[in-house]
Amino acid sequence: MFFADGEVMQIETALRDLVAHRAITDVIHAYCRGVDTVDADAVVALFTEDCIVDYGPGLGTPTHGSAVLRDRLASGLPRFAATSHHVSNIEIELADDATSATTITYLMAWHRYPDERPDAVLYARYHDRFVRDADRWLIAERILRVAGQQDFDIAWHPVVRNA
Amino acid sequence: MFFADGEVMQIETALRDLVAHRAITDVIHAYCRGVDTVDADAVVALFTEDCIVDYGPGLGTPTHGSAVLRDRLASGLPRFAATSHHVSNIEIELADDATSATTITYLMAWHRYPDERPDAVLYARYHDRFVRDADRWLIAERILRVAGQQDFDIAWHPVVRNA
Amino acid sequence: MFFADGEVMQIETALRDLVAHRAITDVIHAYCRGVDTVDADAVVALFTEDCIVDYGPGLGTPTHGSAVLRDRLASGLPRFAATSHHVSNIEIELADDATSATTITYLMAWHRYPDERPDAVLYARYHDRFVRDADRWLIAERILRVAGQQDFDIAWHPVVRNA
Repeated sequence: MFFADGEVMQIETALRDLVAHRAITDVIHAYCRGVDTVDADAVVALFTEDCIVDYGPGLGTPTHGSAVLRDRLASGLPRFAATSHHVSNIEIELADDATSATTITYLMAWHRYPDERPDAVLYARYHDRFVRDADRWLIAERILRVAGQQDFDIAWHPVVRNA
Repeated sequence: MFFADGEVMQIETALRDLVAHRAITDVIHAYCRGVDTVDADAVVALFTEDCIVDYGPGLGTPTHGSAVLRDRLASGLPRFAATSHHVSNIEIELADDATSATTITYLMAWHRYPDERPDAVLYARYHDRFVRDADRWLIAERILRVAGQQDFDIAWHPVVRNA
Repeated sequence: MFFADGEVMQIETALRDLVAHRAITDVIHAYCRGVDTVDADAVVALFTEDCIVDYGPGLGTPTHGSAVLRDRLASGLPRFAATSHHVSNIEIELADDATSATTITYLMAWHRYPDERPDAVLYARYHDRFVRDADRWLIAERILRVAGQQDFDIAWHPVVRNA
């Protein structure tokens, strides 16, 4: 067993990492729900003030800072009639001291336009860097990389493959 | 650290919440597998006897009680040639005493008809209330809210957006 | 509470199971990312040397051993222009001594061909057997069962339904 000796420190470390994993996952989920309910304020509260967010070259230069991010979300999110951001395959690499983490999250994002265009779908990944601020985890950096898409006409950062 | 002092009570509370999270998630998954394998008995065993289940106005009034739910599932589930209920983004709000919880779960549900109709897909959320009964977690209330769909001709409860 | 007495052994067992759940889930995620980045070596490292992998009758007889699996993946994975394997609904049944486990994982797998064929999608499940090897969890057996698909022309093992 990984803590066969029952040392308290080992139990604490294991628990600390599980709790961090849970908390980071909750932030990733809250992001999706905030986007899908068109709640820019709720989304921005999940990022550090000096965050960098890069949705891809087709959507402009990377966003620097949560104030600018808020404006972009407030104007961009209502452009869809509906969206649904389904995340999975969340891989979390915690730093040894559990105060930061890098994560990769799979995303299947469905988008409905207000006009007659067909629904657009992304098969993508969020590559994130998280930091812990007191008892909260915040997204310090997010890059969207796209494996494939249907009915989007936007240039994305690709997923890097070996092939 | 959230249990920097190593107090036993803090460790127990953190563990209790993680175990509850795991158990509730398992119930949500068991629901999907029960539906997809057309096992009405397995599905109903996940609900309280006095449960309320509301799949939306297009599917009739809300179901009251697990006995009625069983009948509805037993007649409704076999109407599809195949289904696949993929859940993710599970957000769990545990009550302080960890005997009940409210949850939001994202759903991507694929349905194949026995005839030539095109496959129908839901992008939706389960809004659930869970209660703990001895050592098991049961669904006391479930409302399905739909962000979008393809090739269904049914009236749903919408996801509430700010837009 | 499930460990109301605060016994150390109960805490250890609960933690051990949560950590095992986390580790097994990480392997399932690493498999998907390895496949989607066309990294046969990374994928094979997740399996036991004497593993059995059965992707279905349309893809030949089951693969015996990680060496053969590596060759099949190295030749098979690059046949797609892009893939995206989204897993969810992971159900893990740990053996009492937590040295092995059986799992069921939902899969939504999107495939793009290098030519003009339409994208192919699987709605499926991995039925796995895991074993613990020192501090790592490895896949000893994997069978793919398919609930439904779009634009694949391959014979699969079906999901078993009661209907």
